[in-house]
Amino acid sequence: MKEIYHLDDLRVGQRFGSGSHVMDEEEIKQFAAEYDPQPFHLNNEAASKSFFQGLAASGWHTAAVTMRLFVKGEFKPAGGVIGAGLDALQWHQPVRPGDELSVETEILEVRPSKSRPEQGMVKTRVTTYNQRNEPVQTFVANLLVKRFVP
Amino acid sequence: MKEIYHLDDLRVGQRFGSGSHVMDEEEIKQFAAEYDPQPFHLNNEAASKSFFQGLAASGWHTAAVTMRLFVKGEFKPAGGVIGAGLDALQWHQPVRPGDELSVETEILEVRPSKSRPEQGMVKTRVTTYNQRNEPVQTFVANLLVKRFVP
Repeated sequence: MKEIYHLDDLRVGQRFGSGSHVMDEEEIKQFAAEYDPQPFHLNNEAASKSFFQGLAASGWHTAAVTMRLFVKGEFKPAGGVIGAGLDALQWHQPVRPGDELSVETEILEVRPSKSRPEQGMVKTRVTTYNQRNEPVQTFVANLLVKRFVP
Repeated sequence: MKEIYHLDDLRVGQRFGSGSHVMDEEEIKQFAAEYDPQPFHLNNEAASKSFFQGLAASGWHTAAVTMRLFVKGEFKPAGGVIGAGLDALQWHQPVRPGDELSVETEILEVRPSKSRPEQGMVKTRVTTYNQRNEPVQTFVANLLVKRFVP
């Protein structure tokens, strides 16, 4: 593993791992109270009668935790993790209290910029797994990565 | 405005507004420290020398604040805001300390479920504006919405 990856170091198919994080009930409710205040993210009783059939983390909470695991994980792009956006994001199943999340990043595309020779775009698939190795979230992100300038 | 919108109440082209939220510097740094610990979201000096040329909110922070404005806004789908995922998300420009964000939601598609007659999918474009009415973020979300059952 390199310390920092320039555009020139990246190849389609490369994969990078991350540490893991256990989502605890308090944290799920705290995030929800601040950013996604809906009964099925806040209250066990209400959640058990909802679509989710039990307390579930906000998808945006899963996304935020994914970002931290990504930033602290193995793939450190030169210039930092700068996203222009996502092509798609899916939440495949609920994240529950006690679930342990980890992230795998796969390089899908590496494209030098025509107009800005010092940088390029990298398309990555970022998959968040739970402790049973089931994907709970996937997205495809378009990242701006610096080229190596000797 | 209705209190709650069932699938049957929704039409392509309907638009819904929200309240607003001012992103302050402390909050930007706090979110970043927790979920996106990168220098350009945490430190004014480092940010001024980065791609962003000044402190910028994490895109995931903008997304999380957007979710709160959405949940507390005019469009209240029956059963709550339950997203299966996003077709696309773009961050158009940095969100800076002092920026006041608000959200507009437009209904793009309304589709009853064939297999589950009590619900359907609604495709919405969710645009987050700053105080100059410039879009800072857009995404297209696929929401699961209940049908009206008399």
